[in-house]
Amino acid sequence: MKKLNSWCIELPVPKPSLDDNSGDLDRLNRALKKETSIARVNSPLILLKDLPSKLRSSGFQIKCALFRDRLGYYLTGIKGKDEKGFLGVAVDLGTTRYVVSIMDLESRQELCKGNYLNPQAKIGPDILTRIHYAEDPKGREEIRELIVQDLDEKIKILCEKAGADVEDIVNVAIAGNTAMTHLFLGIEPNWIIREPYIPPLNRLDLFSAEEVGLGLGRGTKVFLFPNIGSYFGGDLLAGLIECQMHKNEEIALFVDVGTNAEVVLGNSQWLVACAGAAGPALEGGVSKIGKQAAPGVIDKVKYDPVKKKFEYTTIENRPPIGICGSGMIDLAAELFVNGLLDIRGKFVRDREKSLFVEKDEILYLKLVDKSESGTGEDLLISQPEIDSLIRSKAAMYTILETLAETVGIPLSQISKFYVGGTFGNFINPKSAITIGMLPDLPLERFVPLGNTSLKGAKRLLMEPDCFDELFMLEEKITYIELNVNQEFMNKFSGAKFLPHTDLTKFPSVKVRDKI
Amino acid sequence: MKKLNSWCIELPVPKPSLDDNSGDLDRLNRALKKETSIARVNSPLILLKDLPSKLRSSGFQIKCALFRDRLGYYLTGIKGKDEKGFLGVAVDLGTTRYVVSIMDLESRQELCKGNYLNPQAKIGPDILTRIHYAEDPKGREEIRELIVQDLDEKIKILCEKAGADVEDIVNVAIAGNTAMTHLFLGIEPNWIIREPYIPPLNRLDLFSAEEVGLGLGRGTKVFLFPNIGSYFGGDLLAGLIECQMHKNEEIALFVDVGTNAEVVLGNSQWLVACAGAAGPALEGGVSKIGKQAAPGVIDKVKYDPVKKKFEYTTIENRPPIGICGSGMIDLAAELFVNGLLDIRGKFVRDREKSLFVEKDEILYLKLVDKSESGTGEDLLISQPEIDSLIRSKAAMYTILETLAETVGIPLSQISKFYVGGTFGNFINPKSAITIGMLPDLPLERFVPLGNTSLKGAKRLLMEPDCFDELFMLEEKITYIELNVNQEFMNKFSGAKFLPHTDLTKFPSVKVRDKI
Repeated sequence: MKKLNSWCIELPVPKPSLDDNSGDLDRLNRALKKETSIARVNSPLILLKDLPSKLRSSGFQIKCALFRDRLGYYLTGIKGKDEKGFLGVAVDLGTTRYVVSIMDLESRQELCKGNYLNPQAKIGPDILTRIHYAEDPKGREEIRELIVQDLDEKIKILCEKAGADVEDIVNVAIAGNTAMTHLFLGIEPNWIIREPYIPPLNRLDLFSAEEVGLGLGRGTKVFLFPNIGSYFGGDLLAGLIECQMHKNEEIALFVDVGTNAEVVLGNSQWLVACAGAAGPALEGGVSKIGKQAAPGVIDKVKYDPVKKKFEYTTIENRPPIGICGSGMIDLAAELFVNGLLDIRGKFVRDREKSLFVEKDEILYLKLVDKSESGTGEDLLISQPEIDSLIRSKAAMYTILETLAETVGIPLSQISKFYVGGTFGNFINPKSAITIGMLPDLPLERFVPLGNTSLKGAKRLLMEPDCFDELFMLEEKITYIELNVNQEFMNKFSGAKFLPHTDLTKFPSVKVRDKI
Repeated sequence: MKKLNSWCIELPVPKPSLDDNSGDLDRLNRALKKETSIARVNSPLILLKDLPSKLRSSGFQIKCALFRDRLGYYLTGIKGKDEKGFLGVAVDLGTTRYVVSIMDLESRQELCKGNYLNPQAKIGPDILTRIHYAEDPKGREEIRELIVQDLDEKIKILCEKAGADVEDIVNVAIAGNTAMTHLFLGIEPNWIIREPYIPPLNRLDLFSAEEVGLGLGRGTKVFLFPNIGSYFGGDLLAGLIECQMHKNEEIALFVDVGTNAEVVLGNSQWLVACAGAAGPALEGGVSKIGKQAAPGVIDKVKYDPVKKKFEYTTIENRPPIGICGSGMIDLAAELFVNGLLDIRGKFVRDREKSLFVEKDEILYLKLVDKSESGTGEDLLISQPEIDSLIRSKAAMYTILETLAETVGIPLSQISKFYVGGTFGNFINPKSAITIGMLPDLPLERFVPLGNTSLKGAKRLLMEPDCFDELFMLEEKITYIELNVNQEFMNKFSGAKFLPHTDLTKFPSVKVRDKI
């Protein structure tokens, strides 16, 4: 009994004979059982219609594409052994943007990738607006169609770009947060945000591309990563599949940083998870110059106290047009260590008056002069924007601390600190520690993982075993509802300082002498 | 753990709570597992879309419709506990006619039934013509649509007649022979009639009504009874499910009489099956006055040797317009015992000259005078028609004898002789014995079962356990390819006499003295 190493499997099917009265599908199943541990595959009628001629025209040497869910295995494609291969599509279904990757299931190569605006943003940039919009069945259908049709279109464009055939797509894996998953499927999402905050759907089985609304291959099945709860969605499970912390003895922490901070702590023995609003400051689009990572966006900042100037890098080295979350964290850390931000996170104007401007009683830091900027205007950061960042970092740290305390593990004992999310990829851990957003661990323990949601979806398309892991993870993860009680608020208050009221928690952070 | 007694199950689903973070479908599955042995049901997306509101509007008191196949259980409908019930459709998919029954799955009552011409007859009255027509993909699609669209329409008409809602149909069970099953699904049927005569599909899993082409309920699943081989189809398995011979110790024989004679012999320990062409004479439509059972068709015949006249009954007592297979068997038996047919099956004209007419050198028996007939013409039976009947009865007996000899069971040891098929229902066993078509067993051993194909399909809709029986039957039945060798032909030659060359096989048959 061989392990299933790929969703594509070459299968020599016995020929029918007078001694073997079984049908084509039964002989295929028998061959499959011989090669794998799979006793019987489900097949849509449309593939069965092809089966007799495919078998006979290929001399009974075929290759099958398979996919699975909790209920069993499914035949998603049949080809002659020598026909070209099967494709898969991995999707990171984000609230603001979504990323699509076209994979060759045989060579395990990514053929093409695209990053797109989630067109549901037309309805509302934030999840809440969309959920409210989808309360009405018509709105729900409209908002579902927006993303499904756009995805369908983008997949076709990507295939064309890669010289691939849309009809060859057999397996689709989509990882999104709980609300995005519901909106994608057209399932009432409003229960997610109503007491007792239980999503209608957690564990999902395969759907046909047709019922989802995608026009791909004839037998294509779509898997959506399951949710653990309203605030712990399939994107997180995909992240865990990518980070693999559930396979090791050492205690690790996985955090997906976005509007929410979703955190999983544990090892191969146990896993606890929680999620909490980390505040919008960590994602772009909320502060005036705050932006999602894009060409011209500042992602790294250093302050030169001699020149009294900021040095920065921008994405693709374009003239600066804004700053992303990781840039903000860098900036705050630099301001803080150079005494330009006090422990309360307030600008220290007197330290270097030339860096600040005041308008309408609001104090701004001038990050980039209009002479250098890509917008033709000064790039300014306001005190309220810094305040927002501080609240976000405080929330993040409090969530981490609370979860660790709940299970009685000091943060210092965490051996690996995986940071997921595209945004997480850019965070400079040293800066994040400096402002007290991440715990003060040796830097080598921080592992940026990039877009773990997409990577997990891709991994599922490459490694059939991941399903077993996924089902195991669903059972294993204990989701802890963060109780925002007095103690949490006390912790949060302490964490609103830079780096923290309790400096013993951040021994590595050295602050420049006060003025 | 309760047994599943019905495909409809009332299910109190636990409400979501802060202590129970699982989704609606997961809680439904948990409730289901508690009530039954089912761990998880597959659900189409369209039913999941309804699930949250159905649960909440019914106070979490729902009823579900389920169905199953080899792969597992499927959710086919969801309603509030107090909504009206779910419906099922059973279909006997015959070559010439098909019968549709609308069932209430809760009360287990038949709401309505209809018997229709299979519109594929337009393409060809016989299976072979249709199979050839379907070799070409366009023809295959055309012939598939003919029956599927007609069935869809007829189901709607029947529902209207019964005051039932088509949308309430959740489970459909269809029993047809191997070729009809392939043609219904649009699967290449030509392999059925080509060496090595193995059908593309034997074991079938559930399809959605949509992929089959039926527009019924939103989650409706369609089950087609599996085939055992090219000449042993789902109609036969449905027949076995109805006759239940596989549950008893006593050795029984089940025969479905039609153009083919399909025979199963065995008991709860073993089952052997074979099929052979019994000749067209046993089905209506081939002799000039031979007809399918219909109003005005003669189904019983007696000869009054004093009046020198035939007495007969017709269906619905209408004036006679033809004779069906059972009437032909009666007629041949009466002719034989009255010396009007010799042991070779030839008319004995000299016995009663007034009964016969000769036209174009062919001898005819006048069964009904034009003064009495419903057609305004004499109803005549020709010698070739009798010859055809004799060949058919000989084939039938030879098949029975050969199968019994193959397993070493004398025909006399058969405790129950189940006769299936609408036609079989009308056969007078005494007449069939008299002409040597059925073995000379005590009459009480013959059990007419009527339309076993339809009855088996209905039973599957009423008794979920039948699936286990069905899967067991598939494994258990040994299909024997009838080897038409010299020995078979010798047997056949002996069986072409009335009742047989070996009269010791038919001790009960008393023949009137020869003239």
